[in-house]
Amino acid sequence: MTLDGYIASRDGGVEWLDKYRNNTEDYGYTALYESIDTVLMGGNTYRAILGFGCEWPYPDKTSYVISHREQQGTNDCISIISDNAISFIKQLKAGTGKDIWLVGGGQLTAQLLEERLIDEMQICVFPILLGTGIRLFSENSSAYEWIADKQQSFLSGAILLTYRKP
Amino acid sequence: MTLDGYIASRDGGVEWLDKYRNNTEDYGYTALYESIDTVLMGGNTYRAILGFGCEWPYPDKTSYVISHREQQGTNDCISIISDNAISFIKQLKAGTGKDIWLVGGGQLTAQLLEERLIDEMQICVFPILLGTGIRLFSENSSAYEWIADKQQSFLSGAILLTYRKP
Repeated sequence: MTLDGYIASRDGGVEWLDKYRNNTEDYGYTALYESIDTVLMGGNTYRAILGFGCEWPYPDKTSYVISHREQQGTNDCISIISDNAISFIKQLKAGTGKDIWLVGGGQLTAQLLEERLIDEMQICVFPILLGTGIRLFSENSSAYEWIADKQQSFLSGAILLTYRKP
Repeated sequence: MTLDGYIASRDGGVEWLDKYRNNTEDYGYTALYESIDTVLMGGNTYRAILGFGCEWPYPDKTSYVISHREQQGTNDCISIISDNAISFIKQLKAGTGKDIWLVGGGQLTAQLLEERLIDEMQICVFPILLGTGIRLFSENSSAYEWIADKQQSFLSGAILLTYRKP
């Protein structure tokens, strides 16, 4: 997120991140990606990724999209979940696999925070003010404390802050 | 600020900070306080401090309050500035004294960010989600990049992030 808490501009664009992309720093992405076997996201995030027009970026992971707008079903490696999302995610977490990555977005994050279903947050804070846009933490999300874990600084000025659920 | 970017609850309360107060950590406050000879704040912050009912907390500093609601004038060590605030602050910055601390609040911060008059930001991020309240960076504040400077972690899980103006 930006210093002022945004993950995207109002229209969902992430052009602000372009200047931080380079070949030497991945801001912890590879380590995160290797630690998971499942990705989870809401419908807006799903449609944003489809809108990029590229190949599905998580072909080697099991992908779940929580959405009422898409038709329930499974297509290639992507499953659409439209009913009983919370109990589905509880079951998923009870499985014996690797970790699950919540790719986004704000609404699903707020819901999972409310249900205390997020175990760890890795927040990479970039040294930029965006002024407006879509926030990582939406207004009226759940209020509670976290335990700060490790921190990692990058040459670009970004810092990766990791927090665990108490 | 909290992880979700708040500095106070909706009514201006800072009770969320209570659990982080202790006798061994001051989160950089003493170092900051010694580096300045002047404090600057908006009217809401001024009235909030008066509302605490304690002695003026900056008796050994020159205090300026930017406000249209208070009567212009000087009372003890506090001067109320109601006109031409930006040019007043530019003059203040051009002086030869120590640094100036912008105590708050959101409106004055947004205005000074817009005018590129803030040289350094020291943001102490506490490991807590507040869910709602008054934000450090108000909606539609200025969009620009900063240079990340030093970082300092505290046992409580707070981290002090310092940024300089490019």
